[in-house]
Amino acid sequence: MNTDAHPLRARRLLLLTQHEAIVLMRTDCHVCKSEGLAARARVLVRAGTREVIATLYQIENEWLHPDEVGLSEAAWQRLGLKAGDVIDVENAPTVESLADVRRRIYGGRLDARAFGEIITDIVAGRYADIHLATFVAACSAFPLDVEEITHLTGAMADAGDRLSWGSPVVSDKHCVGGLPGNRTTPIVVAIAASCGLIMPKTSSRAITSPSGTADAMETLAPVDLDVTAMRLVVEAEGGCIAWGGAVKLSPADDVLIRVERALEIDTEGQLIASVLSKKIAAGATHVVLDLPVGPTAKVRTERAAEKLTAHISAVASSFGLKTHVLRTDGSQPVGRGIGPALEARDVLAVLKGEPEAPQDLRMRALAIAAAVLELSGVAPVAQGAALAEETLASGRAWTKFQRICAAQGGMREPPIAPLTRALAAPHSGIVTHINNRKISRLAKLAGAPDDKAAGVELLARLGDQVTAGAPLVIVHAEAPGELDYALAFAAASMDMFEIEA
Amino acid sequence: MNTDAHPLRARRLLLLTQHEAIVLMRTDCHVCKSEGLAARARVLVRAGTREVIATLYQIENEWLHPDEVGLSEAAWQRLGLKAGDVIDVENAPTVESLADVRRRIYGGRLDARAFGEIITDIVAGRYADIHLATFVAACSAFPLDVEEITHLTGAMADAGDRLSWGSPVVSDKHCVGGLPGNRTTPIVVAIAASCGLIMPKTSSRAITSPSGTADAMETLAPVDLDVTAMRLVVEAEGGCIAWGGAVKLSPADDVLIRVERALEIDTEGQLIASVLSKKIAAGATHVVLDLPVGPTAKVRTERAAEKLTAHISAVASSFGLKTHVLRTDGSQPVGRGIGPALEARDVLAVLKGEPEAPQDLRMRALAIAAAVLELSGVAPVAQGAALAEETLASGRAWTKFQRICAAQGGMREPPIAPLTRALAAPHSGIVTHINNRKISRLAKLAGAPDDKAAGVELLARLGDQVTAGAPLVIVHAEAPGELDYALAFAAASMDMFEIEA
Repeated sequence: MNTDAHPLRARRLLLLTQHEAIVLMRTDCHVCKSEGLAARARVLVRAGTREVIATLYQIENEWLHPDEVGLSEAAWQRLGLKAGDVIDVENAPTVESLADVRRRIYGGRLDARAFGEIITDIVAGRYADIHLATFVAACSAFPLDVEEITHLTGAMADAGDRLSWGSPVVSDKHCVGGLPGNRTTPIVVAIAASCGLIMPKTSSRAITSPSGTADAMETLAPVDLDVTAMRLVVEAEGGCIAWGGAVKLSPADDVLIRVERALEIDTEGQLIASVLSKKIAAGATHVVLDLPVGPTAKVRTERAAEKLTAHISAVASSFGLKTHVLRTDGSQPVGRGIGPALEARDVLAVLKGEPEAPQDLRMRALAIAAAVLELSGVAPVAQGAALAEETLASGRAWTKFQRICAAQGGMREPPIAPLTRALAAPHSGIVTHINNRKISRLAKLAGAPDDKAAGVELLARLGDQVTAGAPLVIVHAEAPGELDYALAFAAASMDMFEIEA
Repeated sequence: MNTDAHPLRARRLLLLTQHEAIVLMRTDCHVCKSEGLAARARVLVRAGTREVIATLYQIENEWLHPDEVGLSEAAWQRLGLKAGDVIDVENAPTVESLADVRRRIYGGRLDARAFGEIITDIVAGRYADIHLATFVAACSAFPLDVEEITHLTGAMADAGDRLSWGSPVVSDKHCVGGLPGNRTTPIVVAIAASCGLIMPKTSSRAITSPSGTADAMETLAPVDLDVTAMRLVVEAEGGCIAWGGAVKLSPADDVLIRVERALEIDTEGQLIASVLSKKIAAGATHVVLDLPVGPTAKVRTERAAEKLTAHISAVASSFGLKTHVLRTDGSQPVGRGIGPALEARDVLAVLKGEPEAPQDLRMRALAIAAAVLELSGVAPVAQGAALAEETLASGRAWTKFQRICAAQGGMREPPIAPLTRALAAPHSGIVTHINNRKISRLAKLAGAPDDKAAGVELLARLGDQVTAGAPLVIVHAEAPGELDYALAFAAASMDMFEIEA
């Protein structure tokens, strides 16, 4: 390559593509010719010692000179470029681990080496989105067995930072997807830390739901803490509620979650590997898992819950992790709000002990906190509940929560959506069924989780007597287009609530 | 939406993305704000009565005005735009059939309705590449059963044009992937048409191979014939060799093949649906399938061949199609050339009866032609071989082929690659094994099929005595980068040939 004779120059386009590394080059660029590059080729872009694999698009207008390479913001940042820097572009090398993905598609099982190489390539950005989608689909349509889940979990935990806390007991909890509004984490962490436990909680953003804990917590305090920041918060307060992606624990998880979200696929193997790889990497030793079970929850039957519990325990024990799975009622959303800011408001009401605080959220948080206190050994068996209740009722948990928020960078007020619209009960009667999935869908169409203030406020619960015309939910939105979308969906989804006269 | 107040204007970017519909908009565009659009959103773009679903990227530079929408060439062409045309952009509607793709990932089987809706959405461009990859992977990792293959085949045949030829016997043939250089089709069509059969052959471009029949044939004559052009050729000459995609038979197949090629996935169900949907749509009634079997062919064992034969027959009979599957030797490449132009040269040598013509290609073409003549009823059982041989040896097939090329738009000379490099035998001995897959890979790295002249010329065959330093293959390339790639791969692939001293 004669790139020394005609060096390629980097041009910042301020092109927003999310994570996607894209480069634009002229069709008549000499490197496109000598390398035989065509549109959509995968190319290796190098700047000094940094490199990134990108997708090439070609342009035939005057926006670029033939020797210029335009870079998307994701590629620009990863290469750490300055305008006019000299860069190299060539055909990307073959990604060898894709042969393992193909092997699995053809029915072969993968071992630790294969998962290790796949996850390494994914974290290094060597997989295009179609490769990621294929990997996710291949591990779903032909489900991972326990051995494979263990290998995947280990590979994901190894691919990022590993934390250690110099303590034999590091507590953690996790809710296994699927229940809108189930925002117990901030309450549980506040109680556990008040009781002297170390609980460095890292949470995900939403996968296919309208809000993850990180999304909700972010409306109350900064959550993108790096390892150093997280350590300072935990040393000072015993606990934190950080976004897992910002501390680079299991970075593969964030890539996979993005694809799973786009595809709305979220299967058992990926779920277990996602949860446990983060816990292992975060240095947790004792983990309580909240597993909501219900007809429209992620886990729908007791049988599925038993299978998942067994698989979680099997995989966790390979890594010396103690787990306790707490099956909970997943028949309806938890709390009143669904969406980041709306859920944060419910959390505040419980912590402050406000009389109108959602009691179901309060009871669930207490049950999980009790299990954490018992599993971690600060409360004797059957005495966790009393300790948790006392810690919350006394206001100690609320004080602790405020101190954690302050340590994370400062507490703030969740935003309020400018647009709201109530959906009325079509007739009077008793609410006999609430479709969690449709409620979630409604909140997402309204803009959650990207629009923090967007979502759904649920006013009716199972067993409630409602009157025709009374509001069942209030939709919150930040943009009129999204409000229209959500309302159109609601109008077409008569089965979101079943009301028996 | 207040697009009437501030209409969006279309701007042609001459942005080359292959098939991909991409639009660029400014982050501060009023529609991005009112619709809540972020980078990578799927958007519906409308111009008059035409519409396309595209992926949005956002830019924050001065290349576009806030009210301008930049379109990739693929989107521009599909919308039939002129510079400055007013267009609408909004959130793309939910693609309902993706729920069926997800259902299949979770282990459910799909029915005719589901496949019909999926294929309709794919043909309409409503699936992003990650959705296509997911569909392909889901139908591979959890293989389609015969019923599903039948539904998929029917859906794919229904999604495009359907031809009829006003004849009770319309002959066809197809080679089931996997054998480099197996370019029998032009010879078989020429023989069959010479014998009075109607053989309107449509061929694919390569999926994961270095050349499909359409790629090779295109170096001899135009192959992108529309239905009218194809009909004229067949009415005049009895046969044609056209690219299937240009006649819009089974248009879903071309979309799926593109993704399968990128992923290098090509499984039984997709293979059968791909082949038979095209045959059904093309109006074929009697089809001979050439099924090469060998350790590095697509079908590796007699058992796999039996299973595939049974599944093909079962699916074909649902559509009243008569098939004959001819199992052939798949242990090594056919002919001398691998790559579009190199294969075309072998075809010409056989048709012209040149003494140096590859005899294996000649014998295979004759065997298939014999089966076509017998299945279609123009030769009695066991007499097809003699008729095929006589038709070829007499020069009638060569005359017919030239007439077909002329009718398709004019015969032309295949291009010659500017760069060639021989790979020498590392030691003397007898060639005991040739790895078809590595030979194909070598030809692809050299640039085939996109670079028509690129590929591999195979000089050694199984059983040949070779001398140390004598050339085994000659690599042909159009660009130095690709030549380097191919040579680096060859240097690292010592097992492409096994030579026993």
